[in-house]
This record gives sequence, structure tokens and C-alpha cells, in this order.
Amino acid sequence: MDPIIQCVPNFSEGRRPEVVEEIAAAVKGVDGVTFLDVEADADHNRCVLTMIGPPGPLGEAAFRACAKAAERIDMTAHQGGHPRMGATDVVPFVPVRGAGLEDCARLAGKVGERIGTELGIPVFLYGEAARREERRNLAAVRKGQFEGLREAIGTDPAREPDFGPARIHPTAGATAVGARFFLVAFNVNLATPDAKLARRIAKAIRASSGGLPHVKAIGLALEEKGQSQVSMNLTDYRVTSMAKVFEEIRRRAGDAGVQVAGSELIGFAPSDALVRAAAEALAIEGFEPGQVLENRL
Amino acid sequence: MDPIIQCVPNFSEGRRPEVVEEIAAAVKGVDGVTFLDVEADADHNRCVLTMIGPPGPLGEAAFRACAKAAERIDMTAHQGGHPRMGATDVVPFVPVRGAGLEDCARLAGKVGERIGTELGIPVFLYGEAARREERRNLAAVRKGQFEGLREAIGTDPAREPDFGPARIHPTAGATAVGARFFLVAFNVNLATPDAKLARRIAKAIRASSGGLPHVKAIGLALEEKGQSQVSMNLTDYRVTSMAKVFEEIRRRAGDAGVQVAGSELIGFAPSDALVRAAAEALAIEGFEPGQVLENRL
Repeated sequence: MDPIIQCVPNFSEGRRPEVVEEIAAAVKGVDGVTFLDVEADADHNRCVLTMIGPPGPLGEAAFRACAKAAERIDMTAHQGGHPRMGATDVVPFVPVRGAGLEDCARLAGKVGERIGTELGIPVFLYGEAARREERRNLAAVRKGQFEGLREAIGTDPAREPDFGPARIHPTAGATAVGARFFLVAFNVNLATPDAKLARRIAKAIRASSGGLPHVKAIGLALEEKGQSQVSMNLTDYRVTSMAKVFEEIRRRAGDAGVQVAGSELIGFAPSDALVRAAAEALAIEGFEPGQVLENRL
Repeated sequence: MDPIIQCVPNFSEGRRPEVVEEIAAAVKGVDGVTFLDVEADADHNRCVLTMIGPPGPLGEAAFRACAKAAERIDMTAHQGGHPRMGATDVVPFVPVRGAGLEDCARLAGKVGERIGTELGIPVFLYGEAARREERRNLAAVRKGQFEGLREAIGTDPAREPDFGPARIHPTAGATAVGARFFLVAFNVNLATPDAKLARRIAKAIRASSGGLPHVKAIGLALEEKGQSQVSMNLTDYRVTSMAKVFEEIRRRAGDAGVQVAGSELIGFAPSDALVRAAAEALAIEGFEPGQVLENRL
């Protein structure tokens, strides 16, 4: 089967639905690419598009979306609550099936070079596609945002782009293109309206406070449901699975006399993330991915 | 994506490895078909082959295996512990992806007709491919086995085949070709060597004694492991999932003060069976198959 990669580009437009639609239309026109979703956030003035496909068509679609964003978005007039540096702010490529991070990094390099050369936008490779160690971290690449980068590119050698001109694009800014592992957005709901326990559990399990590796977690109240929630991003479900965090939260909530009310999978997940969760939740001994029929095709 | 069907034909040979190998070689030669496994059982004097592929090539592979079995197996000399009526005894087609039972039934009809016409073997359509209500049940089709059918075909109108001559093939016997849903072989192990509890739970959960629908279950001792086991076939995991039986067994064992030690998935399962198990085990609210990326391709 063809290798399949996901692309989840972020654009600095969340208030003009017609512009969001034009960007989505740019990728829908590419044969072989499956458009999955576009979500716009007016507060952040930002939208996120989700699509999957084989590397060639997917790269073409990402490039076209970027070209459309450059045509329609003026960063000198952009305001919004999320850090941003360009009309197309960040273009992550993510392995789904039959492709690894190195394939995604290669695709990021190709697409980044086209954006730099053909659109005249400075491009920084980040994540697993980074060619400088300090650019693995997206926040470091985006430091200073559009306004800061406008000064820094061309004067600070540390901010020299990987592709494109050594000056910011006057309206489209700069773009980060990269590769990362699949991010699973998974929430576990607790049968108590009081968010204190959810916050305590989130703190205990998040990687940054010494909890489970590759887990980002916050606790919050779900007022309408009368519940609370441990809201998570799992940045490598192969290391810490959905089943692992679910069981850990269930145990910790149980110790506090609170039941788990259910869970939510936000957006998409590769079947591998769910298959691994099943194997772990059901304690299947010696489970092999080769036992999944579709993996044998 | 191409529809994908599984075929799991059973042949009346489990003692001569070279004949088993020749049958397997017959399907390996068909482009587009993925050969997965062949298992021979000397006691039953029977082997089971597992393969997947798109309907066309898969039907061709099933036919070729059947032709090879007819050439190499003589039912007049066959002995074994399992009921059987032909060199190729039964050919089930099973939906895997993008194909339903009706597609499998159609394929069974086509392959059955070829076996009848080109090989001169009487063929009975069974399961979801049955064209007479009483032939939905394979045991009814196979009643009397090779020796009994030799007398009945051609004299008893109820035993008239769906395809092929109204007399048994002198050496290859008769063949049942059909369609059924995917069968998941799933076992749950209990942390006690005494099989009494496993047998009691098996009896409580099996469909035939009023337990969970589409569950066949027996209890047995696992002497080497010092454990016992509820050994199951789930004949429709959409109705009763792996997660459901796991949880049910865990609860019943827990009530008896015994822990679940783990579980085993025997052979293969479609990713859908595991994805549903994960969604159920993790209590994912509002889970949709469309959230699985590969389902969107």
C-alpha cells in the first residue's frame, strides 16, 4: 500500500470564513489527498486544516494552501491570542501508515524549499525535520513572532532561514515546516464537578512534572456536564498509550473515591493508537501488529 | 481502496506435509492474494489455510487450492477426528474491509459454480451464501460425512447440490462453500490452576446457555502455566466485543476472588475488532469509526 502521511497546517486566519474556505478549497483540488477537516478559532484568529494522503500529492496540497494563505492574509494587520509568525504559520507532517518520521522530514524539506523559493517566504525546518538542533523546538523557532522576526531575520545569523530569502515576507511573514509524531488528543472525564482532583491528577501524570513520558495534561471543570476532566495530548502513544493514561487516571480517581465517567477522543487517531490501546487494556499476551489483518496487505 | 475478503479453506489433509505445502503453493502463485498462514492438525488429518485479498484474485486462489486438493487427496482412504465430506471440505469467505457478507456470498456463488462445473465436485452453499434455508447450518450440510453423502446425493432430493453433478466425486467428495462473519478466537486466562471457575464462567457467558449473543465458550485448565482459561470464539464482535467478554469474565472471576492473568488473541483479527474493543474498554463517548484515519482513505 501507498505510504500515508497526515498534514495539519495552521494558518493565521480564524475570523473571515471565506478566506478559511478558500484555503480549504486549495487542498480539496488535489487528486489523491483526502481532506478531513478545517477548524477556525476566532479568538486565536487561526485555523487548522487536517488532510491525509501519499507524500507527493500531500506536499502539493500543503504548498497550494500556503500559496493561497500568502495571497489572502496580511500579517501586518493580524491580531490574535496565539503566537504566530506567518500567514501559514506551521506545517507539520505526521506519519500515519507505511511512512516514518524520516519520510515526513524529507517531505518537509521538499515542501519547505518550494515555499521558500517559489513564494519568497523564509522557511524554518522544525521538529524531526530540523537541520539545526535548536530548531527542533517550535517555540524557539517562533520566538518574537511576526513582529520580532521581521527585525531578526537578516541581522541575527541564528535566525537565518533554512530556505527562502533572508528577509521576512512583508505580508506573509515566515513559515515553520516540520515533522513530528502523531498527537492524540484524549480526555478522561471524572464524575465530580470539582476540578481540583482533575488538576491534581493532571499534574501527577504530565511529563513536565515527572509523570508519564510524552503526556501533556491539564485539569478543568466541565460545567454543563457536572463533571471534570483530565484533558491530554499524548505526543507518542507508542510510549504512553491511551490505555495507560486511562488506567492511571482511573486508579488515582478511585483512590480519591471518584469514578471515571467516560472519555473523549478529539479529532482523529491512527488505527495503531487504538489497536495498541485494546491490546493493553485487554492485557493480550504476546500481541503482534501482524495479527491485525490490514497490516498484512 | 479495494474491498478485501478473507478466505479460510479447510482441507482433509494434516499428515502429509508435502501435500499441505502443495496446496499452500497453489494459492501463493496468485498475484494480489496475501497468504497468511497454513496450519495442519495430524489428529484431525486436516489443514486450514488463511489468505486475504480482493474478491477476484482470492476466488481464483481458492479455486486453485481446491483443484490441487482434488488431485492429491483421496477421501476413500481418509481418516481423522473431524467431520469431513471432501478433499476441500469447506471454503468460507469472510468480510474484512470495504466488503460485506453479501459480497462474500456472491463470491462463494462464483467459486462454488467453478468447483462444480470445472472440477466435477458437488458443491453446497452454506452460511450467508446458502440458497436453501436449511443449508445455513454447516453441520446440516455435512451430515453423514463423505460416506453418508456418497449414498444420499442423487437419491435424496434434499441433498441435491447447488452446483456440480448429482453424484459425489469418487475421491474428492463434496465441498461446502459459503460466507460468514469474521470469527475472533479470544481467550481470557484466570490466575487459578483449577478449571472449575473457567468452566462455570464459560457456561454463564456462552450464547447457547442464554449468555452473551455470538459467544461460544469453554473452560479449560492451562497446566503448564498453572492457570485456567475461558476459551472463546466470538462470531460477531460487533454484537459482543472482545472488551465486553473480557470485562464480563473479569467481573465474574473477581466475584469469586480470582484475578484475570491476561488474554490471548489467536491468529488474526480485523483492526475494526480491536478498535471497537479499545473504544469500549476506554469508554470513549460518541466514538465514530470515521475518527480512525485509515477509515477515511
